[in-house]
Amino acid sequence: MSLILTFLGKGGVGKTTTAIATARAYASQGKRVLLVGQQVGNSLAQMLETELDCDPKQVQANLMAVNLVSTTLIERYWEQMRSLENQYLRTPFFKEVYGQELGILPGMDAALGLAWLRDREAEGNYDLIIYDGMGDMYALRMLGMPEILSWYLRRFRDAISVSSLGKALSPFVEPVLRSVLHVSSTEDFNKQAGEATDILSQGREAVKDADRVAAYLVTTADPIAVDVAKYLWGSAQQVGLTVAGVFGRGEFDATEFAPLPVETLADRPGELIIPDHMSPRLATPSFSIDVAAKLVKLYLPTFDKKQVKLIQSGPEITIEAGDQRHNLFLPPELAGKQATGAKFQDSHLLIYF
Amino acid sequence: MSLILTFLGKGGVGKTTTAIATARAYASQGKRVLLVGQQVGNSLAQMLETELDCDPKQVQANLMAVNLVSTTLIERYWEQMRSLENQYLRTPFFKEVYGQELGILPGMDAALGLAWLRDREAEGNYDLIIYDGMGDMYALRMLGMPEILSWYLRRFRDAISVSSLGKALSPFVEPVLRSVLHVSSTEDFNKQAGEATDILSQGREAVKDADRVAAYLVTTADPIAVDVAKYLWGSAQQVGLTVAGVFGRGEFDATEFAPLPVETLADRPGELIIPDHMSPRLATPSFSIDVAAKLVKLYLPTFDKKQVKLIQSGPEITIEAGDQRHNLFLPPELAGKQATGAKFQDSHLLIYF
Repeated sequence: MSLILTFLGKGGVGKTTTAIATARAYASQGKRVLLVGQQVGNSLAQMLETELDCDPKQVQANLMAVNLVSTTLIERYWEQMRSLENQYLRTPFFKEVYGQELGILPGMDAALGLAWLRDREAEGNYDLIIYDGMGDMYALRMLGMPEILSWYLRRFRDAISVSSLGKALSPFVEPVLRSVLHVSSTEDFNKQAGEATDILSQGREAVKDADRVAAYLVTTADPIAVDVAKYLWGSAQQVGLTVAGVFGRGEFDATEFAPLPVETLADRPGELIIPDHMSPRLATPSFSIDVAAKLVKLYLPTFDKKQVKLIQSGPEITIEAGDQRHNLFLPPELAGKQATGAKFQDSHLLIYF
Repeated sequence: MSLILTFLGKGGVGKTTTAIATARAYASQGKRVLLVGQQVGNSLAQMLETELDCDPKQVQANLMAVNLVSTTLIERYWEQMRSLENQYLRTPFFKEVYGQELGILPGMDAALGLAWLRDREAEGNYDLIIYDGMGDMYALRMLGMPEILSWYLRRFRDAISVSSLGKALSPFVEPVLRSVLHVSSTEDFNKQAGEATDILSQGREAVKDADRVAAYLVTTADPIAVDVAKYLWGSAQQVGLTVAGVFGRGEFDATEFAPLPVETLADRPGELIIPDHMSPRLATPSFSIDVAAKLVKLYLPTFDKKQVKLIQSGPEITIEAGDQRHNLFLPPELAGKQATGAKFQDSHLLIYF
């Protein structure tokens, strides 16, 4: 199993520099490290002073690096789709569309990057994968994708399955969904969710697991950079991403990030080992459930009471904060129950059932 | 008609500062200006020292500002979709899904932002709309969306319409497409495209029109910032976006951007009027067609011959450069014809038919 680490912060604060320093340090220690860039114009390659493409390349002992290019990735994944479709559908309709023709729509970079990271993680060839992505909020949207996409699938499945459209569609959609996502639209949702057998549930669980995915904030003393870092910290909770500490350059008020540990970063750090007290395991969990007390706790630092909304218009509970929505995914004991009360206290949203 | 302006460059080079200075300058001159932020954590509001939300608010005479929040926008557009669906479908299936529940998937920020910009442009209440987006590459993905999405629609329509899936789907998809995009999937594509009656064709035409949408590069002397700006300049051509000049801070080699005009920017410019020699109308067109000579010319600065690929695997011609693909949209005289030759010369790709 690989730990996936990422650095969040405003553009220009030194996220790529920090990612490289961390990758070099762990590789020097003998860990197998993969450094993944997904950025405009291959900046990672430039900073490493080497050429990089879509296939990992060794840049020092134990350190592989790669630059994800969406046009290349879409061709590879398209070929996989076509061969799956050939297996599962009697009249394949993607046959006449070629991977080389496909343009990149907004959001595809994130979907392709996430699928690629997942495949590398599943292979288990690396102890540490460091992801240096296209942007901060975009990284959160990417990591939130398994949870939100599975919500859309189940919500629209319910809405569509009872309609005449659903009846017309199901012979076609069913086999594709089953093959691509390992999900069956006919099985009971709660049972399926409990088993976490499909790719989306697995992705959601991975992002929420501090042993598998974690982030650090990077900031300078610029008040706007500090505010962006704080905002990303709060927003990360909405996708269940563990934020385990702050690396700062220059002088700013570290108490703004309490209780997160804050470390000062050299201007151009050569190597950076994450100190023990910044271990992701020590971070406050973004989400905890006490089934016996029928209580769900969500950690939402940096937001105040007015900025957090609890919405229960459909069958599930939605939490809105920081331009993100997160549909509460409850265990069978609480699923489908109405919330009886909620309060916001010490940066936690408490929901009672 | 409004001119939409945007600034492209690496994170931290001062795009927002430059956008604000430009907005203030034109507002002082008496132009009606709308400054649109779509960023992590409302940085635009912070720099303007005011509160901003999804509805434009006056910040000085002639200057309105807004910060786009995707969770708010998705609710508004969802309500529009539902009412359209109610009009066009006998059994609406979105009825039971509420706008307040909808999470934000990667790419939705771009789609919502673009729809919102388009609506403001159509209202015609502003002379100038300045868009300060989530990120550089993301802005290009956003502006490329009408062209790429319309390619997906027509390509998959052709592939799907002959399949049994297509026959099952058409009674449902047809009315929704017609109502949402003003596009009819049964009409002849070339005829329709020539008339540019649907929203996607209109969007594509607007992005390519230097009188309607244009961009300026912003950079510092940091070699990586210079390289990112150059990369974005080349990539902008792939979506047909006019790049009309460079604003730089510090000392760098202006010839790297030739033939673009380069202007030096003060560290914290209060007001910035775009000089006449940087007018978008003077920029090299990204795309030109000589029907008589059966020649298509594409301007692709910053790329070398090896980085540009011409692909003709499907019925249309695809140009790949800078992690973008662009499917050549040809006038009826050349549509469907095979390319007979191509060469790359003086930063132009010449394609002969």
